[in-house]
Amino acid sequence: MTAYTLAELIARFGGEIRGDPRTSVSQVASLAHAGSGQLAFAAHSRYRDQLQASQAEALIVSPDLADVCDKPRIIATNPYAYFARASALFNPPLRGEPGIHRTASVHASARIGADVNIAANAVIERDAVIGARSVIGAGSVIGTGSVIGDDALIYANVTVYHDCVIGDRVILHSGCVIGADGFGLAPEAGRWIKIPQIGRVMIGNDVEIGANTTIDRGALDDTVVHDGVKLDNQIQVAHNVQIGEHTAIAACTGIAGSAKIGAHCTIGGAAMIFGHIDIADGVNISTNTLITKSLTKAGTYTSALPFSEHSVWLKNAVQMRHLDSMAKRLSALEKQMDATEKKE
Amino acid sequence: MTAYTLAELIARFGGEIRGDPRTSVSQVASLAHAGSGQLAFAAHSRYRDQLQASQAEALIVSPDLADVCDKPRIIATNPYAYFARASALFNPPLRGEPGIHRTASVHASARIGADVNIAANAVIERDAVIGARSVIGAGSVIGTGSVIGDDALIYANVTVYHDCVIGDRVILHSGCVIGADGFGLAPEAGRWIKIPQIGRVMIGNDVEIGANTTIDRGALDDTVVHDGVKLDNQIQVAHNVQIGEHTAIAACTGIAGSAKIGAHCTIGGAAMIFGHIDIADGVNISTNTLITKSLTKAGTYTSALPFSEHSVWLKNAVQMRHLDSMAKRLSALEKQMDATEKKE
Amino acid sequence: MTAYTLAELIARFGGEIRGDPRTSVSQVASLAHAGSGQLAFAAHSRYRDQLQASQAEALIVSPDLADVCDKPRIIATNPYAYFARASALFNPPLRGEPGIHRTASVHASARIGADVNIAANAVIERDAVIGARSVIGAGSVIGTGSVIGDDALIYANVTVYHDCVIGDRVILHSGCVIGADGFGLAPEAGRWIKIPQIGRVMIGNDVEIGANTTIDRGALDDTVVHDGVKLDNQIQVAHNVQIGEHTAIAACTGIAGSAKIGAHCTIGGAAMIFGHIDIADGVNISTNTLITKSLTKAGTYTSALPFSEHSVWLKNAVQMRHLDSMAKRLSALEKQMDATEKKE
Repeated sequence: MTAYTLAELIARFGGEIRGDPRTSVSQVASLAHAGSGQLAFAAHSRYRDQLQASQAEALIVSPDLADVCDKPRIIATNPYAYFARASALFNPPLRGEPGIHRTASVHASARIGADVNIAANAVIERDAVIGARSVIGAGSVIGTGSVIGDDALIYANVTVYHDCVIGDRVILHSGCVIGADGFGLAPEAGRWIKIPQIGRVMIGNDVEIGANTTIDRGALDDTVVHDGVKLDNQIQVAHNVQIGEHTAIAACTGIAGSAKIGAHCTIGGAAMIFGHIDIADGVNISTNTLITKSLTKAGTYTSALPFSEHSVWLKNAVQMRHLDSMAKRLSALEKQMDATEKKE
Repeated sequence: MTAYTLAELIARFGGEIRGDPRTSVSQVASLAHAGSGQLAFAAHSRYRDQLQASQAEALIVSPDLADVCDKPRIIATNPYAYFARASALFNPPLRGEPGIHRTASVHASARIGADVNIAANAVIERDAVIGARSVIGAGSVIGTGSVIGDDALIYANVTVYHDCVIGDRVILHSGCVIGADGFGLAPEAGRWIKIPQIGRVMIGNDVEIGANTTIDRGALDDTVVHDGVKLDNQIQVAHNVQIGEHTAIAACTGIAGSAKIGAHCTIGGAAMIFGHIDIADGVNISTNTLITKSLTKAGTYTSALPFSEHSVWLKNAVQMRHLDSMAKRLSALEKQMDATEKKE
Repeated sequence: MTAYTLAELIARFGGEIRGDPRTSVSQVASLAHAGSGQLAFAAHSRYRDQLQASQAEALIVSPDLADVCDKPRIIATNPYAYFARASALFNPPLRGEPGIHRTASVHASARIGADVNIAANAVIERDAVIGARSVIGAGSVIGTGSVIGDDALIYANVTVYHDCVIGDRVILHSGCVIGADGFGLAPEAGRWIKIPQIGRVMIGNDVEIGANTTIDRGALDDTVVHDGVKLDNQIQVAHNVQIGEHTAIAACTGIAGSAKIGAHCTIGGAAMIFGHIDIADGVNISTNTLITKSLTKAGTYTSALPFSEHSVWLKNAVQMRHLDSMAKRLSALEKQMDATEKKE
């Protein structure tokens, strides 16, 4: 591993050094586990004790923790983001060597940019375009006419259907499927007639999409994931959904057709969003929450239930079926009570 | 794109023309976005204004909207289904050229029908059968002894395990897994002994299965998906489930082992169905609903909660843990009130 | 199929024979469907009638059912586990012939154990290690530096990222993804900075992982799945989760980052477990239940709601939004009632 001095780090990422700027680090670790040659971070005063006890070679700390320990340290306004950048320096993704593996299948009409790495058994179909320095992992399939931007990192066994457009620096994790048909069906005499899904999936720059996440192509217009969106694993994005810039969505969440999610939202996991609704910018949706109508202002929204021991739960849950009657009985009692008090 | 006149369309699909039957269209679009050469539809009087304003070349309208606009139009009893058929004419799926790609691996014992297209790096294992005109997408694997019907469309990176039987005109989307082992385990002394899953998966004709959906093989008998069933993405169908004809299930739904779902049901998304229960024909199950016991008659069933702003939610949700006590206190008050009133 | 006499079965698996020990069976079946040459089991007195009516060639029964029928039978203390072992004898998994398929891509630096079967279009990347007698299915990808133990069974289209460690006798089903990046993001000025995920996934011996299940690699330390764990399909295991020995988790469950699940737990399906919590050994979590905090003792925990017909549900569910006010109104009434009674 390549080592960097604190002086080299602040030359790249800013911040201020306390202690010896020639201190050299080559890996990141947690405050609790960091040792010799390792860099840890602390961003909150609740880590004061751990910070003092840390065996890290050097630290990244927030200004209020600047003098809590006397180890070599970098003062940064956002220690976690600083740590992320330092870690990316120490741990670049495995991109392999540029070149097309002999077992890959690249259609003669495909356009392959400079320094692309296409791994074993990957398939690039007719008229597809792969941007410069992008990596296409083993067994991944890029469909006819689809376009991948520059510096993309597509892991193994990803599927991109035909005619999708994917931006620069996008990361697609294994098993994700971009551009499968949306679930469009017209009922007729007890059967379903398939609606051809002729829209595309458009994915902006700097998007990351987790393992086994699915993003369906649009029915008529496109499904759109804007710049900087981060999707975790096993998320389902239905046809014609739009997801605004820099929104992050946790695993197992489902978004139904034509929902429009704003920018800078955080959602899930296992949240479900109804179709044909609008979610404003800056909305936070809690884990396991079902959003059934549009949200017009920023805020946090929830519908997840507290759990109990099973026997206790059963007694309470059965009353869910009587809430309407309980409400009516309560109102009746209030009226009777009023009447009683008036009589006196 | 091939263009069709309205006269050609009604020759294929029926309906009645108003306006010039030589009007030519080559693509479908939404009422709002359709332009020159494009065909849109309107099925409901709430689209009356949009219909009048539409820039579509021609329209498909329901009989009650026959005279709302004076553009060339087809009157059809089910405009949405008509639109679906016209769109399928304009937008046939990309099936590629018949032939076996040089990088595909087809076992010598496999039987490959006429005009089959087997794409790059697909794998057809021993004794598998691929019906006429079917497409096996890049990287897909058809396991030993499995049978795929005629005119099937299997997209890239699909997995079909051994000994499964899949009907005609079936569509399998990328990442779906047909025939993995059901989750069968016998507990013994704190460990789990695997129960071999020796049933198959049987899939009827005209079934469509979404991206990353999983259908497990049966434990002893088969898992069965009947004709015309439509499954969206990321659905889990456990071992020995049966799904009746023309049932449609939305994304992220899970169906536990040996559940029997009727015909013509609609389910989900993110519904969960308990194992070993029977669901009658014609049942509708709402999004996020948990079905814990058999449903013996058609109807709509729900258990999804309304969301609130988080702070409001917390105050209400905490009372879920007191519902049983609230019910008892309410009953006690009613008795006291009765007693008070009798005294007077 | 190979046939075995009851005498041969008890020589392997123990138990006691009633009836002719030369009775020969070659397949298992359910009590209801078993016929000639087939072995069924009954473990509970509620199957007494089915047992008497069974057409099975032979039976495995619990001691209390030893004399319910007069067919040849094996008395076993755990008939279900006995049945599992007999079935495994009759139905060994299809492991194919040892050898490396000509279309597989095995890096020159990879170490391949004795009698390994690497199927068509599988990819073994640099420095990977495959243990003796393991099977790597068609299209599966074993990433750089990852280690697979002995006798593993990796089905088609599985993805294992770099540097993961997988034990002996592990079964990985199609579409599962081991070692994708955890969802680690540092917010900075309205954008997300990716935290490199430098931990690994460590999977113990005798683990089975279902189709399309995803297990993310750790952020700094490792994600760990201990010996004997059984995971169903479409489960999401986030970074740095630990799952204790012999825990079984049903489909569609999600486990958030750094949750620590004990040994001998049963969970799900579609349960959700919050991150950074501890779950004690021996906990059972019900279907569709959300666990939001640590569980320090064994027991069963639930938060799933009973469903109703939709119209009934709506009337009750709307009251969820008034529970806090109902609770307050109830308390107010109780006080008034007290006051009224005191006056009298």
